[in-house]
Amino acid sequence: MQFFSDNWAGAAPEVMASLAAEARRYGTAYGDSALDREIEQRFSKIFEREVAVFFVGTGSAANGLAMAAVNRPGGVIFCHRDSHMIEGECGGVEFLTGGARLLGIAGAHAKIDSALLEAALAPFDPPSVHGGQPMAISITQQNEAGGIYGIAEITKIAAVAKRRGLPLHMDGARFANALVRLEVTPAEMTWKAGVDILSFGATKNGCIAAEALVFFDPPKAADAAFLRKRAGHLFSKSRFVAAQFKAYFEDDLWLRLARDANAMADRLRSGLSKVGNVREAWPTQGNEIFVVLRRADADRLRKAGATFDDWARPADLAVAPDETLIRLVAAFSTRPEDVDAFFVELKR
Amino acid sequence: MQFFSDNWAGAAPEVMASLAAEARRYGTAYGDSALDREIEQRFSKIFEREVAVFFVGTGSAANGLAMAAVNRPGGVIFCHRDSHMIEGECGGVEFLTGGARLLGIAGAHAKIDSALLEAALAPFDPPSVHGGQPMAISITQQNEAGGIYGIAEITKIAAVAKRRGLPLHMDGARFANALVRLEVTPAEMTWKAGVDILSFGATKNGCIAAEALVFFDPPKAADAAFLRKRAGHLFSKSRFVAAQFKAYFEDDLWLRLARDANAMADRLRSGLSKVGNVREAWPTQGNEIFVVLRRADADRLRKAGATFDDWARPADLAVAPDETLIRLVAAFSTRPEDVDAFFVELKR
Amino acid sequence: MQFFSDNWAGAAPEVMASLAAEARRYGTAYGDSALDREIEQRFSKIFEREVAVFFVGTGSAANGLAMAAVNRPGGVIFCHRDSHMIEGECGGVEFLTGGARLLGIAGAHAKIDSALLEAALAPFDPPSVHGGQPMAISITQQNEAGGIYGIAEITKIAAVAKRRGLPLHMDGARFANALVRLEVTPAEMTWKAGVDILSFGATKNGCIAAEALVFFDPPKAADAAFLRKRAGHLFSKSRFVAAQFKAYFEDDLWLRLARDANAMADRLRSGLSKVGNVREAWPTQGNEIFVVLRRADADRLRKAGATFDDWARPADLAVAPDETLIRLVAAFSTRPEDVDAFFVELKR
Amino acid sequence: MQFFSDNWAGAAPEVMASLAAEARRYGTAYGDSALDREIEQRFSKIFEREVAVFFVGTGSAANGLAMAAVNRPGGVIFCHRDSHMIEGECGGVEFLTGGARLLGIAGAHAKIDSALLEAALAPFDPPSVHGGQPMAISITQQNEAGGIYGIAEITKIAAVAKRRGLPLHMDGARFANALVRLEVTPAEMTWKAGVDILSFGATKNGCIAAEALVFFDPPKAADAAFLRKRAGHLFSKSRFVAAQFKAYFEDDLWLRLARDANAMADRLRSGLSKVGNVREAWPTQGNEIFVVLRRADADRLRKAGATFDDWARPADLAVAPDETLIRLVAAFSTRPEDVDAFFVELKR
Repeated sequence: MQFFSDNWAGAAPEVMASLAAEARRYGTAYGDSALDREIEQRFSKIFEREVAVFFVGTGSAANGLAMAAVNRPGGVIFCHRDSHMIEGECGGVEFLTGGARLLGIAGAHAKIDSALLEAALAPFDPPSVHGGQPMAISITQQNEAGGIYGIAEITKIAAVAKRRGLPLHMDGARFANALVRLEVTPAEMTWKAGVDILSFGATKNGCIAAEALVFFDPPKAADAAFLRKRAGHLFSKSRFVAAQFKAYFEDDLWLRLARDANAMADRLRSGLSKVGNVREAWPTQGNEIFVVLRRADADRLRKAGATFDDWARPADLAVAPDETLIRLVAAFSTRPEDVDAFFVELKR
Repeated sequence: MQFFSDNWAGAAPEVMASLAAEARRYGTAYGDSALDREIEQRFSKIFEREVAVFFVGTGSAANGLAMAAVNRPGGVIFCHRDSHMIEGECGGVEFLTGGARLLGIAGAHAKIDSALLEAALAPFDPPSVHGGQPMAISITQQNEAGGIYGIAEITKIAAVAKRRGLPLHMDGARFANALVRLEVTPAEMTWKAGVDILSFGATKNGCIAAEALVFFDPPKAADAAFLRKRAGHLFSKSRFVAAQFKAYFEDDLWLRLARDANAMADRLRSGLSKVGNVREAWPTQGNEIFVVLRRADADRLRKAGATFDDWARPADLAVAPDETLIRLVAAFSTRPEDVDAFFVELKR
Repeated sequence: MQFFSDNWAGAAPEVMASLAAEARRYGTAYGDSALDREIEQRFSKIFEREVAVFFVGTGSAANGLAMAAVNRPGGVIFCHRDSHMIEGECGGVEFLTGGARLLGIAGAHAKIDSALLEAALAPFDPPSVHGGQPMAISITQQNEAGGIYGIAEITKIAAVAKRRGLPLHMDGARFANALVRLEVTPAEMTWKAGVDILSFGATKNGCIAAEALVFFDPPKAADAAFLRKRAGHLFSKSRFVAAQFKAYFEDDLWLRLARDANAMADRLRSGLSKVGNVREAWPTQGNEIFVVLRRADADRLRKAGATFDDWARPADLAVAPDETLIRLVAAFSTRPEDVDAFFVELKR
Repeated sequence: MQFFSDNWAGAAPEVMASLAAEARRYGTAYGDSALDREIEQRFSKIFEREVAVFFVGTGSAANGLAMAAVNRPGGVIFCHRDSHMIEGECGGVEFLTGGARLLGIAGAHAKIDSALLEAALAPFDPPSVHGGQPMAISITQQNEAGGIYGIAEITKIAAVAKRRGLPLHMDGARFANALVRLEVTPAEMTWKAGVDILSFGATKNGCIAAEALVFFDPPKAADAAFLRKRAGHLFSKSRFVAAQFKAYFEDDLWLRLARDANAMADRLRSGLSKVGNVREAWPTQGNEIFVVLRRADADRLRKAGATFDDWARPADLAVAPDETLIRLVAAFSTRPEDVDAFFVELKR
């Protein structure tokens, strides 16, 4: 009954086997091994165009370096006000950019409302040395509230970005979960919809530490290798990140793992809809579910060994005093019996 | 015949087994798992005092965050002019400190000459707003030129540091190799000799990515957790770094691996001393050897599959036009037959 | 009819005379002249306690260096969402702190609502490495909307700051205007009410470029001299800033100039209350007035040579389509005839 | 007998008169006044091409912002090891660039030796993520040791810069003193010789605080306005910097002031050559003279009211134990009788 977060999960056996195999070999350090190169090319194949790829160990590193790569003095980044960049990285973007500003935009389900985005951009047109200058727009797919942007929604935000000459960044911490739900290709969910830079996350979906910063226009990545290195994010044994990706992509393991997680979330959704005194706080599609339930039930579940995270109540959500809002996350490793045990305990 | 660098080596089977075991479990994220705590305590036990420990993935991260933790505006860090911080981190210390300065000190075998250190510190006494203020001294053990500071040498530099009220940092990228050669305890080679902060490296000695930033005076580490997080260096699945250390310390694996590497370096030293047209450039003690040999020999060795790094000739080293200076590094995984094959080829 | 801003005004003759006198002398550079010291002591006398003072040339420098002096990694600064730090410094605070975050608090008349401040602080108690840590609270006196905090209001916010262990900073760009209106002493409006650090502005009130960063607890200023110098804010001929302050304080010139400006603002207020089709947008007390008037009137006034700034309409202010919101600022140099000419034109 | 530094001098009466006149007027703030524009154009005229100009208050600001404008991650700046950027700005360049590195090059008379420059650049060709990447070359004219680069010398260094694709920056803290000595035009001493960016200093030569950052290729200055603002270096009453330059350029005042200072230095040189027990430490041409004299003489001069600075003895300069090395600087305001009084006292 482990539903706290997908980063509480372990790693897929295939990923571990790939690491073990790599451990028995020598290889060039600092990202220059044959395996590093092979996986970089694999990314280009997956995204159906030549991309520039930089392996890192955390999503915060990928996000922060992405912003550093498009940095401008007095730069302002437009992202959702509940985004991980704002809420969960201890000012990492500000730090890695030397002080760019994150401007939080509202929008339902933690998705940027494009009208509000336009309104937020308006005062910066033209930019002034007093208020600063827009430097990027960032969206999260799948996001913190379980929301998934449809292709049309991404395209709409990308259109705003293009009009303003701004790069569009996607924080893809749960990229795979969104991808398999939308049933589109990686290309369709990114550059074909107008995304310029992607933080491609694999850690939450079965790896131990494997993230990739992907530039769809390689010349824009000219500085990224220097930025990564000087921030301490170039692994000497970089090929062990590559080795994780190798297994991750092999036979579409990544899509399978994401589908498994989403399926377990669906099982949760379906089951919860049949339980009294429990309701979904808002509809979600991927592997994260937000549920309002009675405190007493939550307490009992925890006592029984279930783990899940408390979530801050949005202003517009009605939660009774004896109720609480929680998040349930299904991971690649969640089994049907974990879900069913949760229901048994909940209904007790 | 892989002698390019110990970071070209793979990882120890015990480390991989520990990772594999951890992959099958759930665990709290962001460094708060039971395993993280257990290994932190293990560090305290190894160092015979309560220490504050922060796991990171690269030595550059450990070094840069160490300096950030003792940062002062206009700060100047005194380290050897051939140190990794200066030569190999792309300005990482400068970046992570927001612009501290590295002041390179000379000294034989890449070890800081304490008289030159005193001389370099003199103009900063008292500090002025024009020249800046000293903020730290950093030494590397075992260092870039294969040098190992004796305990007395560390103590002497520590005395300078104390007199100036400066923290003494040790870049321990090859900590274990030095430790087993000196036949002292971790405590003796660090805080008992006056070291305040340690970058404890395990990656080069049989892990895939496991480094620890260790503060011997835990209150001094108050900011380190925030610094690590905002630099993107807090792994969500931090327990996989802990898992590497678990195996690394179990049954003194780390000391065994370092002794193995050093023994293979000794086998190289011993063998080389018997070969004509080859000489050690300077004496070393750990797992790195610097050798002057004929270019023709170096080329032939490489053709036969040997790997090793070219090294920049120091100004005071005589190298004939038909000779070249190379570095040979023995890793934990180097086997006697690798060394012997190298000699066979060299003597051909 | 110059009402655009008090920084469009020139400088007081007394200030210029002091500069001219200083120009004929030699003096030690970089803040070490007898005059620098004399004026530093003058600040201590004015504030009735020993203070640490650092002269700079802009309010942005004072604000940014104040925040840099209390910097913490992952630091969050709580200030009004309409504050100059957020709206008008191009991310200067973020830059000078290496990426601290400004968190905008709402509140009427651009004054922080202390209840909202408490609410904003709550999620950071205790601080976490994900969300960052509070590092300062900053208020502006007199602020961007013409608002002036009463002593009780400052005390209330200071109480919040103390409870959280946070320094309270006052951006005193228009310090004198607020001071003479409240009819209190400099000490009463600052440290006696709980203010720890002050950006003391004189430029807007009759100087050409004279600002002072004042620490009421001098040991807290240990790093400030280094921060100022390395940000390029230590003037070689620093004594010319001191010379401005010399005249500024002599015979209470500063209070006289501020009273003159406020009196002219009062004359504007009084006159405007008697004109139809014009209304104060919200009540103000100092030298800034916010007025809703007909666009046609505004246009005609401008054609006649009047200058004033358009102001962004707050969400809760009713402004008809044919109306506009403007700001009128009276400076030390505003004359009654300027005000009267404005009315003549307005009533035309 | 004030020879400590030209920044101990006051300001020229013409400059003060211009300030006083400006004080009586209103003007647009933040660099947008008619006067700001007029002086910007004046710079273009003086340099015989369209330039982008940014007024600031200190030379350190100009230098640091110049480097920030050409910043690259892992960037290395090549300048003389005795340059002001390295020796006298408290790490200002490092701070304003977020951690670029200054690499000190040797060379006689504090002028970069172009062969040593080439040698220092060699290891960065090609740049690597380990060592960083070259980002600029900076020379000082007239420099810290009183040295003046001849046009051919500048051209030679510029050729190195061009070959490496690096911008050439000139720190012109004492630009005028060098200019009138070389008897060339501002254009000849800068862009015609290959200089790309200039820190144009006027403070030392008769202003109170007037420096200009000049880009000879205006498109390269795209970010400079934002960089200046967010570093706190945009004066609200910017026109008071412009007013200083107005007088400075009027009727070639600046050239006259520099010639006066140089002439007084020549009077010192000439007189010193006739005094026993005194010798020039090395030949200089501008307004700075470096002299070895007996300590007893130096002490007596100081007691008599003379001011001058002690200078650090270069390794290759013979100075007897009872001797000392001092710097004498003539300012625009130095009078013949000051010089003569110095000699009277010296010969006593």
